[in-house]
Amino acid sequence: MSDFHQAPHKLLVIPGPIEFSDPVLLANATPGTAHTSPLFIPIFGETLKLLRQVLLSSPESGSQPILIAGSGTMGWDAVGVNLVERGDEVVVLNTGYFGDSFADCLEAYGAKVTQVKAEVGGVPTDQAIIDAISSHPKIITITHVDTSTGVLSPAAHISQLVKKHSPDTLIVLDAVCSVASEEIKFDEWGLDMVISATQKGLGVPPGLSVVLASKRAVETVEKRKTPVQGYYISWNKWIPIMKNYEAGKPSYFATPPVQLVYALHTSLKSITSAPISDRIDAHKAASKYVKDSLAELGLDFVPKSRDIAANGMTAVKFPKGVQASDVLPKLAERDIVVAAGLHKAMATEYFRIGHMGVTAVNRERGDLEKVVKGITEILGKN
Amino acid sequence: MSDFHQAPHKLLVIPGPIEFSDPVLLANATPGTAHTSPLFIPIFGETLKLLRQVLLSSPESGSQPILIAGSGTMGWDAVGVNLVERGDEVVVLNTGYFGDSFADCLEAYGAKVTQVKAEVGGVPTDQAIIDAISSHPKIITITHVDTSTGVLSPAAHISQLVKKHSPDTLIVLDAVCSVASEEIKFDEWGLDMVISATQKGLGVPPGLSVVLASKRAVETVEKRKTPVQGYYISWNKWIPIMKNYEAGKPSYFATPPVQLVYALHTSLKSITSAPISDRIDAHKAASKYVKDSLAELGLDFVPKSRDIAANGMTAVKFPKGVQASDVLPKLAERDIVVAAGLHKAMATEYFRIGHMGVTAVNRERGDLEKVVKGITEILGKN
Repeated sequence: MSDFHQAPHKLLVIPGPIEFSDPVLLANATPGTAHTSPLFIPIFGETLKLLRQVLLSSPESGSQPILIAGSGTMGWDAVGVNLVERGDEVVVLNTGYFGDSFADCLEAYGAKVTQVKAEVGGVPTDQAIIDAISSHPKIITITHVDTSTGVLSPAAHISQLVKKHSPDTLIVLDAVCSVASEEIKFDEWGLDMVISATQKGLGVPPGLSVVLASKRAVETVEKRKTPVQGYYISWNKWIPIMKNYEAGKPSYFATPPVQLVYALHTSLKSITSAPISDRIDAHKAASKYVKDSLAELGLDFVPKSRDIAANGMTAVKFPKGVQASDVLPKLAERDIVVAAGLHKAMATEYFRIGHMGVTAVNRERGDLEKVVKGITEILGKN
Repeated sequence: MSDFHQAPHKLLVIPGPIEFSDPVLLANATPGTAHTSPLFIPIFGETLKLLRQVLLSSPESGSQPILIAGSGTMGWDAVGVNLVERGDEVVVLNTGYFGDSFADCLEAYGAKVTQVKAEVGGVPTDQAIIDAISSHPKIITITHVDTSTGVLSPAAHISQLVKKHSPDTLIVLDAVCSVASEEIKFDEWGLDMVISATQKGLGVPPGLSVVLASKRAVETVEKRKTPVQGYYISWNKWIPIMKNYEAGKPSYFATPPVQLVYALHTSLKSITSAPISDRIDAHKAASKYVKDSLAELGLDFVPKSRDIAANGMTAVKFPKGVQASDVLPKLAERDIVVAAGLHKAMATEYFRIGHMGVTAVNRERGDLEKVVKGITEILGKN
């Protein structure tokens, strides 16, 4: 089995799903295994522990990892189902498409949402955030990297603002496109919930909802006055299961996606084989290479400045007069798959390149040189 | 890649997850592929069509397949989120553990649930069902195979009763442990929703929630007086996406589990390469072989009679004085993994054998002969 090599395919450099390593894909092809198997239980337990490690959270903090079959989007529902009671105030910091959708989701669970919208390519000002939390909302949400704009929100700084001006507000970080590609210090920043998925920085096929909840978030569920607003996504159901798996005991609520957990375990073992800061630095270096190369071609970026641009992806504008149909098919001919624009205000004006996981870390693959060469050949002449 | 063979492992014969074929596992190791890829879209579209075919539903019926990252349990939430409005009456026919849980789930969404409980190993009487639906509830749920008891509910017959006595009641079949292993005639029986998962009769790793909704069920959501009770599981979000995939158009709400969809496609192509009735017959033959062999050893079954015993699994009682710890570890030593009892009234008195998918259909594997031999060696002497 160790000689498994994935099938030839076009290079996938979108902001997720990303390229997967052969060992991760082989783990996703693990033979039929019971969710209560003595082989699987320790794998699941260790996966939970490794997730805490990647997010720089200690077991002593009381933080609770929760892995459920689902998608990144389902993490928003986990907020709505578990943390929101009808009428609760929530502030959503909006840096693109995913802020709008997160707000829609929380409103479906009865939250009174106030959105603090940044200009396209920008982040909300400190004053706008301070004003919004002056009413001491129950929850504030931050989209760490909004893949529609490639904007990286300064999560550490925003968390400090919240701790200063509204310390009881729960801080929820939508980190779907940032876990294992951008710096996240769960305990140090005082985060209450990180929401993610497997198919981006974690380098695993899609299908797992990845959540880390703080002790304070878990206690918020325990102290609810109204029932949890769901069943499958209820932490009351899942937390005992996750605690059992971490303690090495079989447990059942709903069948976990066994093969995906094996795949995530394989990826997390690789990720944690070096300091997580090394991995984040590798993503910064990859990002700098891509952005410097594109800047040399005279291209502009959607984020207004480099310090609020994601390290795991690049949202770059077409030159004047050039559109997606001039570029993306030609890249596809070169076996390179990038993504079109997504933000409705300017979807046709830019495209998006993902550089996460093996593409960013295992630079000997030459993925990014291939991407830059392709774009240079197509756009360099313009 | 065609020479892929899964790793050696113990034979998994529990009521799901089951043994997977090499082509299915290889499909689950498909390289990184965008959810909007021109390679993936037709695969997803065809998967939806094939699912209808397996359930004997025609596209003209207006039935809507819905495939979302999640588990079988999430299908219960799909009922609660989409079909239930607070205060709606629901009748749950209970043939074991999973009826209790289904009821819990629907109550979380505000349903007024009346359970019609069968004796352990039995099914509700016609009169009990007729009485329960005399108030014309909005929904009735049937657990097709309750894996805690191995009881197969007579779904065709129950559907007829409902059509006669309360024709407006929506009929929901929990078919997690019956799709592609027991007969289901969606259109002919007039079902409104089939709920399933991939890791049982469909022979695919866990992680996909599988739903087929009737035109009437879809219209029920459209006519709601109150908003849908969720976001990620909302059919309002997903149905347009599924329609687009089936029409060959890219579409995005949340990232589908691309690799699992490839795996399901691979399995469905194999399943539909012969008439579905052949597959059901193969499961009946496999079940008869297992049950006849165990009966010859003098063992009794949890279902009260053969005609209400599942064809995809067997729930069999230990002889007097024998317990799980006398049998299951010895089977595990022979590389055979069966499941312990689950129904709380008698969990220690029986064990469960799964015989679905390749184990039932590809009898040349010899899986069931191995299981029967193992049990005979261990229990035959008692």
